[in-house]
Amino acid sequence: MVAVGVIGSGAWGTTLALLLARKGISTTIWDHRVERALEMQRTRENSVFLPNIRFPDNLSITSDIAEAVQAKDLLLLVTPSQKLRENLRLLAPYLAPETLLVSASKGIEITSLQRMTEVIAEELPDWRERIAALSGPNLSREVAEGKPTAAVVASDVPEVAIQARTIITCSTFRVYTSNDVIGVELGGALKNIIAIAAGFNVGLGYGENAKAAIITRGLAEISRLGVAAGANALTFAGLAGIGDLIATCASPLSRNQQLGRRLAEGEKLNDILQSTHSVAEGVSTTQAALKLAARYQVEMPIARQLSLILFEGLDPHKAVPELMMRDPKGELEGFA
Amino acid sequence: MVAVGVIGSGAWGTTLALLLARKGISTTIWDHRVERALEMQRTRENSVFLPNIRFPDNLSITSDIAEAVQAKDLLLLVTPSQKLRENLRLLAPYLAPETLLVSASKGIEITSLQRMTEVIAEELPDWRERIAALSGPNLSREVAEGKPTAAVVASDVPEVAIQARTIITCSTFRVYTSNDVIGVELGGALKNIIAIAAGFNVGLGYGENAKAAIITRGLAEISRLGVAAGANALTFAGLAGIGDLIATCASPLSRNQQLGRRLAEGEKLNDILQSTHSVAEGVSTTQAALKLAARYQVEMPIARQLSLILFEGLDPHKAVPELMMRDPKGELEGFA
Repeated sequence: MVAVGVIGSGAWGTTLALLLARKGISTTIWDHRVERALEMQRTRENSVFLPNIRFPDNLSITSDIAEAVQAKDLLLLVTPSQKLRENLRLLAPYLAPETLLVSASKGIEITSLQRMTEVIAEELPDWRERIAALSGPNLSREVAEGKPTAAVVASDVPEVAIQARTIITCSTFRVYTSNDVIGVELGGALKNIIAIAAGFNVGLGYGENAKAAIITRGLAEISRLGVAAGANALTFAGLAGIGDLIATCASPLSRNQQLGRRLAEGEKLNDILQSTHSVAEGVSTTQAALKLAARYQVEMPIARQLSLILFEGLDPHKAVPELMMRDPKGELEGFA
Repeated sequence: MVAVGVIGSGAWGTTLALLLARKGISTTIWDHRVERALEMQRTRENSVFLPNIRFPDNLSITSDIAEAVQAKDLLLLVTPSQKLRENLRLLAPYLAPETLLVSASKGIEITSLQRMTEVIAEELPDWRERIAALSGPNLSREVAEGKPTAAVVASDVPEVAIQARTIITCSTFRVYTSNDVIGVELGGALKNIIAIAAGFNVGLGYGENAKAAIITRGLAEISRLGVAAGANALTFAGLAGIGDLIATCASPLSRNQQLGRRLAEGEKLNDILQSTHSVAEGVSTTQAALKLAARYQVEMPIARQLSLILFEGLDPHKAVPELMMRDPKGELEGFA
């Protein structure tokens, strides 16, 4: 029988665990906090992130890392991006040699500028040929409620992508395979930058046209960085690129978009970050992206303005019109 | 002094006329119905399509085609696509040799399968070198209210695109130039097919993830047809492609999206079409696109299912899940 461990009990980790358990797969969520794990085990729900969605009986919750990791066919890694490395070190001693490692976190490690699968390969070199990344237009709440969507699982090793797809896919969550790990991971991570910018737009009262323009110019910008880093441009035109970006920017619930809206409404970054349970990955991703942009010599005007707003106190009311009002020119200037 | 005529008094024609008049350009809207023209002249608004947005003093309305056309620097053609040819025949006798002709209609002539600028070039061959097409994420109401956005004006003749841009661009409506007339026109027209499909999604209660997935797969499908017809793939990644598609699908006001929603809710096509003032261009565009797809031997699964629903009575509750549930495979299968 197939068994899966889920490292991370946020909204997305819990949602993926729900999907797998509903499919009949024996699934174990790990939460490092003993009380939270006990509470979820007792109430049979994740009251913080997915209230009122009941856990199936074959979904267990544990705070014992060994229990979450041992004898699993597949481990889903769904921690905040900056915590992945320390969690890998915790779980390494219990990992079976044949376990597949699938990252579902959307971020870049800020200290190393590594993607999640690069962090995994570095920490667990013996599992190098068993790593994949999962991404797509996947707002947790909708997926948990059984509304249909699709996603992409990418691996350098085609059979790993296929095995992961077979385990994860179901009738409401269609998983496609890809061999473009770089594109799938960067699409998922970098889109959070554009989601914050789209949130400014909402906070400034600009409407759907301006939002669509920011998403369009944002996609061009993150695709440029992705291609410079070795990704396939078509991945950014797919589910893990524009698909994820559209869903994130459509949802008023998106943490990154909310962050942008609240900044535009005058709140301070630290106050906003302290007021939420969840991690707005876009903040650290903006820093990481600008460092990668410098490495690959790519222009990222939206990320640059965003960074000035987040870290230098620039007023969004000045920055966003400036982005819109640049000299008119050919639309594709600067492209190959 | 610059003078512009606007052929067509729907929401978009009126909006473009408002923008130009506010910029200080002497602007004349043409409506073939004498009473409607008199009413707009008297009430100083377009009460049908843009109620409560006041016309500036330098915006005139006429039902006299000569007055709308004579001695103009630029003529904006904003009629329903299927009516463009007959309007061109009406206005031809009054057209000055130096007038630029800019199409802002988003459709394909169903009888000829021609784009709007092809219809213009055929009807007015002496103006062949003075034609352009305008498109982008431009929901009329938002643009008329002065909310910021951007658009693309494309011409085979670079100076024509620049002249048109200079006349039309303003601080809230940034116009970029392009030389890809085919891509800009097909992007604007074909996106209405995907907007109807996105409307099904709303009517079926599927949520933002599924909508993002449909937009993503839809963009791939219309890009494929566009590229086969001679467009630049990058145009579909720009404002006139994905930009327009996102704005249209984000707006509950989009006529095409409303049509899809109402079909999914069980209404009949003819009843819906008879209940609205405005033309849902996506219905005829679906027919035209499938004919073009056959000509260029391109797969358009969304347009095909949509056509079955629109014209063969297929139940959307069956068609849409079928689109979602196709066999899992590589995401980019079928691409170059």
